[in-house]
Amino acid sequence: MAVYTDITEDELAGFLAAYDVGTLTSYKGIAEGVENSNFLLHTTRGSYILTLYEKRVNADDLPFFLGLMHHLAERGLSCPLPLPRADGALLGTLSGRPAAVISFLEGMWLRKPEAQHCREVGRALASMHEAGEGFALTRANALSVGGWRPLWRNSEARADEVQDGLKEDIAAELAYLEDHWPRNLPQGVIHADLFPDNVFFLGDRLSGLIDFYFACNDFLAYDIAVCLNSWCFEKNGSYNITKGMALLSGYESVRKLTAEEVSALPLLARGSALRFFLTRLYDWLMTPAGALVVKKDPLEYLTKLRFHRAVVSSAEYGLRRDEASQ
Amino acid sequence: MAVYTDITEDELAGFLAAYDVGTLTSYKGIAEGVENSNFLLHTTRGSYILTLYEKRVNADDLPFFLGLMHHLAERGLSCPLPLPRADGALLGTLSGRPAAVISFLEGMWLRKPEAQHCREVGRALASMHEAGEGFALTRANALSVGGWRPLWRNSEARADEVQDGLKEDIAAELAYLEDHWPRNLPQGVIHADLFPDNVFFLGDRLSGLIDFYFACNDFLAYDIAVCLNSWCFEKNGSYNITKGMALLSGYESVRKLTAEEVSALPLLARGSALRFFLTRLYDWLMTPAGALVVKKDPLEYLTKLRFHRAVVSSAEYGLRRDEASQ
Repeated sequence: MAVYTDITEDELAGFLAAYDVGTLTSYKGIAEGVENSNFLLHTTRGSYILTLYEKRVNADDLPFFLGLMHHLAERGLSCPLPLPRADGALLGTLSGRPAAVISFLEGMWLRKPEAQHCREVGRALASMHEAGEGFALTRANALSVGGWRPLWRNSEARADEVQDGLKEDIAAELAYLEDHWPRNLPQGVIHADLFPDNVFFLGDRLSGLIDFYFACNDFLAYDIAVCLNSWCFEKNGSYNITKGMALLSGYESVRKLTAEEVSALPLLARGSALRFFLTRLYDWLMTPAGALVVKKDPLEYLTKLRFHRAVVSSAEYGLRRDEASQ
Repeated sequence: MAVYTDITEDELAGFLAAYDVGTLTSYKGIAEGVENSNFLLHTTRGSYILTLYEKRVNADDLPFFLGLMHHLAERGLSCPLPLPRADGALLGTLSGRPAAVISFLEGMWLRKPEAQHCREVGRALASMHEAGEGFALTRANALSVGGWRPLWRNSEARADEVQDGLKEDIAAELAYLEDHWPRNLPQGVIHADLFPDNVFFLGDRLSGLIDFYFACNDFLAYDIAVCLNSWCFEKNGSYNITKGMALLSGYESVRKLTAEEVSALPLLARGSALRFFLTRLYDWLMTPAGALVVKKDPLEYLTKLRFHRAVVSSAEYGLRRDEASQ
């Protein structure tokens, strides 16, 4: 839950004067998003999201994020659309922070997604990968393999506080992934954080993707690995191959994976599990006790990491491959 | 900020089936209210607030609160209206908690109210006092003079941690108020917590009152004392008599204060300041460090209490009285 910055009605009215959104009738801080402050606005025209970008977000990245949403929406992907100000800019300033007004996307994220939803997510992810083609800006993935060691250095010394033997285990894993990380897989713009709370549904129909604030250029198949981790495990830590199969076949109904991507998937899944493990471990150890943020358990991702370590072939994720067609 | 209980889309859809609200299209946890979990719902019909009553609220009080909102709204006061279920009940159960769906009130609370807004609040408070007449249920004010000593006993031993000499000061104040608390002032249903975040405005027009979860039967003038404390002091601790004058004259434009109420006002203001001081002190000392609640500074109310202690006559609050008219 996140509202780090409160705003006065006068500041907000002044800020909104530059937008073609009608007259403000209410605004409520909403308990979504961890990095930014978000408000749900009602105006005489409809509903909008106001986002204030807090310090954790690098302001230099904002043109990439907002430009990407614009690019994707123009190509028919259902995602929030940043509204232009009277001067054409997608970004303004409110309470000393960069701020944007974004179209409100109806829909709900699923607390208990089923296989059919995983299929929709796979399809939408592939559509996003295709829609991202031709986007002019680029942004490196700071949380890919090159970013894990610096992150690890901050937590390493205290890792055994969380689980005995963790320090040695993760050090070995990190070294292995650094040595074996793939180099030549198809690249493009990836979402990089397509967890269930970033995908909206209306009934069983996917209504849109949100929260592009980790988007970057990286291997497309890495995005699939993130989704396998975040959509296809049960709460008890077991992998649900029916969901995996649905997600992967949904993806391939739009974009077929190459043979290299298929081979690399177990390694990408390990890497993705390590990435979320490391950021959660860092937050777990570093977040002050009084902070207004729910800390997520890093061990959930350790369990997933260990599962992937035992995977030999992508078939174990539910990837169906007619050998003849490869 | 408060969302203590998350709910799944299936639970929510099942719950809403008993209400005549159309089809759910989105729900967001909102960062308002301290006692309960609140969600802003969009449906094909419009916007609604869903409130889940958490343990801090006594479930036996809910018929009073919801019935009161219904009673006040029927008598023309602008306040949220609890929606009936198909069986006529105003209360259902969701995620194991009592829950209600309430009409959404457009408007914004003022972070920086001015004198003109204080006038509107005074007028609305008096209108509420009049509209409350004839409401059949009653609820004692657990946080009036009889409730302060038990509250104080829980904090007393540690009070000097907050400010040196506090223990002695508050003990004397409490004894004085217990001895001098008025007995025969006009009574009725009071809001008891009409702080700025519980009053909505559209532009400079007051659009409604919310959050009746401290409402009870008590002296009407005590409600005015709560408002003087919460609307008429500046951030630096000084009393703004222009605001006080506006609030009091707004109130009296609807309901004239009796001579006894006028005389009692400084004492009621002391009592009201002590009440908020004591609950804040308790929360300050008792809230665990990791709780997802912003702790409010009790010393703000100590400053106010000391101001009221020096007040001799209600004229110092800005109450205008033509001696002849009394």
